[in-house]
Formats: sequence, structure tokens, C-alpha cells
Amino acid sequence: MIRKDETICAPATSSGGALSVIRISGPRCFDICEKIFFPAGKKVRLKEQEGFRVLHGEVRDDRDVIDDVLLNIYKSPRSYTGEDSAEISCHGSPYIVRRIMELLISKGALTALPGEFTQRAFLNGRMDLSQAESVADIVASVTFASHRIAMNQMRGGFSTEIGKLRSELLKFVSLIELELDFGEEDVEFADRKELLKIVFKVKELSDRLADSFRIGNVIKNGIPVAIVGKPNSGKSTLLNALLNEERALVSEIPGTTRDVIEDSVIINGLEYRFIDTAGLRDTSDVVESMGIRKTREKIMQASVILMVDEISESPGLINSRADTIREMITGFGKRLIVVVNKTDQGDDDRIKDLKHGIYLDIDDSLVFISALDHSGLDKLKNRLGKVLEKEKLAQDEVIVTNLRHYEALAKVSDSLGRVMEGLEKGIPEDLVATDIRQAIHYLGEITGEITTDEILGNIFKNFCIGK
Amino acid sequence: MIRKDETICAPATSSGGALSVIRISGPRCFDICEKIFFPAGKKVRLKEQEGFRVLHGEVRDDRDVIDDVLLNIYKSPRSYTGEDSAEISCHGSPYIVRRIMELLISKGALTALPGEFTQRAFLNGRMDLSQAESVADIVASVTFASHRIAMNQMRGGFSTEIGKLRSELLKFVSLIELELDFGEEDVEFADRKELLKIVFKVKELSDRLADSFRIGNVIKNGIPVAIVGKPNSGKSTLLNALLNEERALVSEIPGTTRDVIEDSVIINGLEYRFIDTAGLRDTSDVVESMGIRKTREKIMQASVILMVDEISESPGLINSRADTIREMITGFGKRLIVVVNKTDQGDDDRIKDLKHGIYLDIDDSLVFISALDHSGLDKLKNRLGKVLEKEKLAQDEVIVTNLRHYEALAKVSDSLGRVMEGLEKGIPEDLVATDIRQAIHYLGEITGEITTDEILGNIFKNFCIGK
Repeated sequence: MIRKDETICAPATSSGGALSVIRISGPRCFDICEKIFFPAGKKVRLKEQEGFRVLHGEVRDDRDVIDDVLLNIYKSPRSYTGEDSAEISCHGSPYIVRRIMELLISKGALTALPGEFTQRAFLNGRMDLSQAESVADIVASVTFASHRIAMNQMRGGFSTEIGKLRSELLKFVSLIELELDFGEEDVEFADRKELLKIVFKVKELSDRLADSFRIGNVIKNGIPVAIVGKPNSGKSTLLNALLNEERALVSEIPGTTRDVIEDSVIINGLEYRFIDTAGLRDTSDVVESMGIRKTREKIMQASVILMVDEISESPGLINSRADTIREMITGFGKRLIVVVNKTDQGDDDRIKDLKHGIYLDIDDSLVFISALDHSGLDKLKNRLGKVLEKEKLAQDEVIVTNLRHYEALAKVSDSLGRVMEGLEKGIPEDLVATDIRQAIHYLGEITGEITTDEILGNIFKNFCIGK
Repeated sequence: MIRKDETICAPATSSGGALSVIRISGPRCFDICEKIFFPAGKKVRLKEQEGFRVLHGEVRDDRDVIDDVLLNIYKSPRSYTGEDSAEISCHGSPYIVRRIMELLISKGALTALPGEFTQRAFLNGRMDLSQAESVADIVASVTFASHRIAMNQMRGGFSTEIGKLRSELLKFVSLIELELDFGEEDVEFADRKELLKIVFKVKELSDRLADSFRIGNVIKNGIPVAIVGKPNSGKSTLLNALLNEERALVSEIPGTTRDVIEDSVIINGLEYRFIDTAGLRDTSDVVESMGIRKTREKIMQASVILMVDEISESPGLINSRADTIREMITGFGKRLIVVVNKTDQGDDDRIKDLKHGIYLDIDDSLVFISALDHSGLDKLKNRLGKVLEKEKLAQDEVIVTNLRHYEALAKVSDSLGRVMEGLEKGIPEDLVATDIRQAIHYLGEITGEITTDEILGNIFKNFCIGK
């Protein structure tokens, strides 16, 4: 981290709004700001100001006033990064932002790397690594559930949980060391049982956390849904109907329109992502060749499969198509929803016939809709909403959403499994201690007590600039 | 302005950045903020805080922490709007912005109308109307020149100039009233001459300002350029070459990429907008039918016409095409640049022949290029850059960029013309005074001393929300 001595700057807002904010942080922050910022009224030394103050003034170069701005001052260590920091709030003009950035750079600041502000916050001990990671998740969160989990992680909920595991393991290590110290005396066998109990409890906690990644990942990244079915069954009409009904909810308030995410809807605070809908986007369903390989790929990526057929289809054909899909998904924990479309073209008797004729597996659902009339869509959404019901976790339970954390926890469990095996087989304490230290090491990787440039690089490269 | 008693809120940044800012302003600002913002550390009353302070804390609803935020506090009258105001700086997540906005609204704030913050700043006397108008221009400015003019206007340069005119006219009115008071005595005829001198000087100033609109408009909105010529002369290649060379300059610094403006380039701090290039965007020049009417429309909208021909063309044909264009533009102050393209397909002798054979009017230019090789482009850009040279004004001269101001100034000049006529013809002083009051009225409309809801509505409806 050679850059630590450098002062960095970056726009922290995207262009297009009424105002823009430029962040500056580092040891020369105030020196550099003083060269371009001229407070209204009497001249003041920025270094002598208290933190958490706002100054009004002008940014100027040699010839011109660039803008009338507000300057927020934060003094080390009471700042986001822990360093001397400032935020220039200027008019939301890309031209002005560029001029101010050019000025800052000409006075000695460097353009910040992606995530560099948050990385400095971590390096300066303002947050642990899992908290730093949650910052990107918070910015990316688009649903109630993903926001809540990311916020809990940022506020240290996850770190606390990891801390508990760690302190249990440290207790365990001290017990082992006690045994080693008194190794030559006759140690009670009961200690082994006690040790086993602790390690069992920690492994259980760690397994539970690792398991929560299944749902955590779904909450964070959305539930992948595949829409399959023969041409002209109305797949594209269904997709458009779902998108039209739900899209509007996202941008009720002016100025908050999120970037359009290709084909995803939010139902009951969870995001459902439709996989590979390129062929469905135009209404000419026919173009989709529905090659077996392509459909299989789509199904294997999905957690939920919407198999669309039309009401005029024979129950036998529908059953045989559903069976083909069931063969693919058996054992993968995927859910099948058989959607019979075009109810506007059939009567109640026909629906009754199909209800009797279509065979369902225990976790499958059958829904009748008319994508054209938007009838039955509520029922379908209700089914989609129930996909995760079984797995829904308690409100403030800590959930793992990060692949890196999941992998570390899996390694913790592996190490602890070896510890348990060792204890049962009576393996010498010092060998057991090696495995336990490995588990502690992996826990430390999560919160950043143990870290490498490579880990840090991977984490922060996905941040946006200015964060 | 019934809304004056309301507290308004709006996102002031567009979504997509590392952070977002929400603005709140109005009499209940701090009451509302206290209901959703909970400072870290000990509880404080926002009303009792000093202005220009930053507080760190959380935004919460009944159940959840929505975000960890910073709150800037500004107390009336030391704020942008002149009212009690606050800015919540939260993570740049559209979801969080929406949640905070919903919370503010549920506690009694209203979503701000476009430009309402600036409108309140005007109504509360924090800036005059022409300064308020400049705020939108500053946000929209993309070039050195347009930024400088808007900044000068925001800082009151234009208002000062209008103020000078006004005080001259008020001096005039008092002289007139003096004459009326002593009307029955024998007034010296010299006074009339003195009056005429003042009004002449004011009219001259006002005319000069009105005239500056021609260049001001061009600086603010860009110089319209038409590219015309027969199919396959290389118009689209030329357009693409110009766009490719100049576009890159706009987004050097990460995060500041401006929204792509269709077909405009910046040369020497001025923007050149290419008119109606839809037909030129794909490289198949041939599709453009080049109907006379369509070409004429394009030419009449432009200030500069690039007439593109190729090096194999005969000088006679080029001259006759140029003449057709000259006929259209005579008296309109437009400039013609004859561009001979595809020099890569001709030799120096051929160029010499054309140079001798092509006839140019006094303000026309002739440029040889190869759009394919990008050769000669610098010379062409140089010519484009010189289009405004004659009219370039001094660095700190006040320039009118706003149509509304221009129209008001034109009316001022009309009124003053009538005053001069009246004075020369010996019309009674009280009638002259009516015209002078009209001129003062129009000047007042510019700075907002005289205003109507309609004028205000027209001005602020074009602002973005949050400004």
C-alpha cells in the first residue's frame, strides 16, 4: 500500500443531478484544498477548523471562479477513511466536476482507485473487512431483504457472529494448551469430552452460517427464474405482463429511477431475475428455436422453472414435458411451476379437465393464467413468492451473502471436522491445535485480521470510484 | 405561492454514484429530520445546533436502520433557500434514497417541484431572478465559455449591469419630475439635451446587451453546423472523423462522463452542434435523398454550412452548388466552408487546379481534407474555430444568453426609442415619463423586482428536481 501517503480524490456522485460531490482524503487533504478553495468572508486555515464543519466559498483557478461550493471538513481520525478528509459539494455539472478534479490533481492529489476510500477505512481500522465489503452491497441493494442484510453486515452484525465463533475457538485453544502444559500428569478424559462439546457447537454455528449462503445469495443476487415452453405458448406475453406490473413500483419517486436491470421483478421484497430472455423480448416467440441444450442450460441456471403451455394442450403432452424437466432438476432443489396460459381461450370445464389430468410432484405448482388479460398473475406471483417460504429465516438472523465469506466458513467447517475426528480418535493435542489454528485463521480472513494484497485487491476492484 | 409554508424534499444527486444527497428545506425541516435521523452519541435537538454543522447518525424507520448518514444543517437565513435546510448524505443506493424520501414524506414533507429550492432562494431574496436562472445554465454548461458566462451571471455580473441601466433611468425620471415640478416656470431647453444624452447612453448600453445575445446564445447552446453535399461525397466519414477526434476529450476523468449529446464537438472551448445528422450516422451516405427542401431547412437552421464535395468534382459544379447555398444564406450572417474531400484520391496538381477554379465570397473558406486519413481536419477545425472570431467579446464583458432577458432588453430599447423620439419632438414630459417607466418595468422583469406567477412558472419548470 504505497499509496497510503498520497492524497486521493474522486467524484462520489454520478453526473446528471442538481449537485455533485467530490471526495478528498489523505495527509495533504487540507493543504491541497486550501490552494483551490477560498472561503467566503475572512480567510481561514482549514487545518485549524474543527471537523464536521461546513464552509461556504469558491473554487478558483488562476483566472476564474470555477464554482460556488460547500466544503465539508472531517479531521483524522473522525472521518470515513480515518484520514483528514473533505467533500466539495458543487453544482451538478460534469464540466465543473472535471475542472475541480483537474485542479485537485494539479495541486498534487491522485485520482482514487475503485473502492480506495473504503479500503483506507479498513486499513485505518475504521471498519473490519466484512463491513467494508457490505458497503458495496448496500449501494447495490434493490430490495428490502438485500438492503436489510447488507445494513446488518455494515453495522457489524456479521462480524459479531464471527467474533463469537472466534472467542469460542480461542477458549478451546486455551483448554488444549492447559492439557499440553499438564501433559505429563494424568489428565482427566472428561476434558476431551468437554473439548468435543465446544468444537461441536462452533462447527454447528459455522455450518449454519455457511448454509445461510444459499438463501443469502438468492436475496442478494435475486432468484433466477427460467421461462420455458414451446413456441407460441405465450412466454413473451407472460414475461412482459410480469415486467409491466412490477416495474412501476421501482421508480415512484422522481430522481430515484434505478438503472434498468434487464428483466427482473420484485415480489414481496425479493428480486426474481429472468434468465436469458433475449429470445423472449420481442413478441415473436417463434424465433426461439428451443433447442434441448439451450433449454437445459437455462433450467440448470434457474431456481424456479416456469413451464408455459396453453389451455388447448393435452394433459398428456403437458405431463410428458413436465417429466422431461423433472428429470433434469431432480436433486437440485429447483422448483417447477406449470403455467397453463390463454385461459381466455378456454372454459371452466376445460380448466377442470386439465386440473385433473396434470400430474404434480410434491413441490410443484400448477397455475392457470391469461397473460393477455393479466388474469391469474397474482396467483402466479403468489407462487413465486412462496418459493423461498420454507427457507425463510428469522428477521435478525445473520445471513451470509458473500461468496468469499461462504468459502472461508466452509474451510472453517472442514478444519473443525478434522478437529472432531482427531479428538474422537485420540490424536495428540498439538496436532489438534494445528487444525484449530487453521480454523481461527479462516475466521480472521473474513473480518480482515488476516489478509493479503490479493484478497484486498479482489474485494475493492469491484467497488465504484469515489466509494 | 401557497407552498411557501410547506417543507420540501428531493434527491439532489442522480442515482449511480457512491453517495446520494437528499435536500430538505422549509419551516418544519428540523422537526421532520428529528423524526427520522438519530445522531450517533448523545441525542441533540437539531434546532439548537448551529448552522454549517455536520452530524453523523442513522436514518431509521420504526423497524429498521435505513442507512448510516451524514446530515448537513443550515439555519435560516444562512442557507441556499434562506429557510431552515438540511442535506442528508447517504449511500448511493436508489433503494435507500427511495426509503428515505418515503420516510420524509410520511413525516410531512412534500416532494419538491422542479427548481423549487432555487425558486425559494429567489422568493426569499437570496438571489435575484437572473441569478436564479443562471443556476440551470451552470448545471447545463459543457464548455469553458458557457460555464464562464453562467458563472458570471450567477455571481451577479449581469444583475450589476442591469442595475446600472436602472439607476441611470431613475436619474432620468427624477430630472423629468424636476422639470414637471417647475413646469410653470421657464425651464431651460438645455435640460432636454441633457435628458436626451442620458437616454441615448442607456439605450446604447441596452442595445449592446441585447446584441450580445447573438453570441451568448451561440456560446450557451452551441454553434449549429450543417453538413451538406451530394451522396457519397463523404459527409458521414467527415462527421465520424470529427466526432472521434473530439469526443475523447470530454471524459478524461473517471466518473465524469457526461451524457452523450448527439453529434456535437467542442473546439477551442466552443460547442459545435451538427444539425439533423440522422441520415449521416450510418456510413451508407446514399440513403440520404438530399431533397432541396430538406437541405434548405438544414441550412437555414445552421450558422455554419460545410458543403462537402470530392476532389474529382469539376470546379464549375462546385461553384454552382456553392452559389445555390449562397443565394439561400445572403443577409443571414451564416458562414460557408467549402470542403473538398478525398484528397487521398488526388494529387497536388489537382488541388492547385481546384484552388484556382473555386470562387469564394469574402467570408467563405475552402478546405482540402481526407476524412478517411484524417488529414486536413486540423485546418477545418481551425476554420470552424474562427467562425466567431470577429464577434469575440472581451473576457469579462457581460453577455446575454437568455431569450427572456433578450426579449426584455429589446422592449427596453423600444421604450427608450420612443422616449428619444418624444424628447426630440417636444412631447410633454408626463408622456415621456410613461415610456421611461415602462423601460424600468422591463428591466425589473429581468432581475425579478417585477414578476408574475407565469414568468416564475416558465423559468423554474425547466429546472431539474432537487435544484
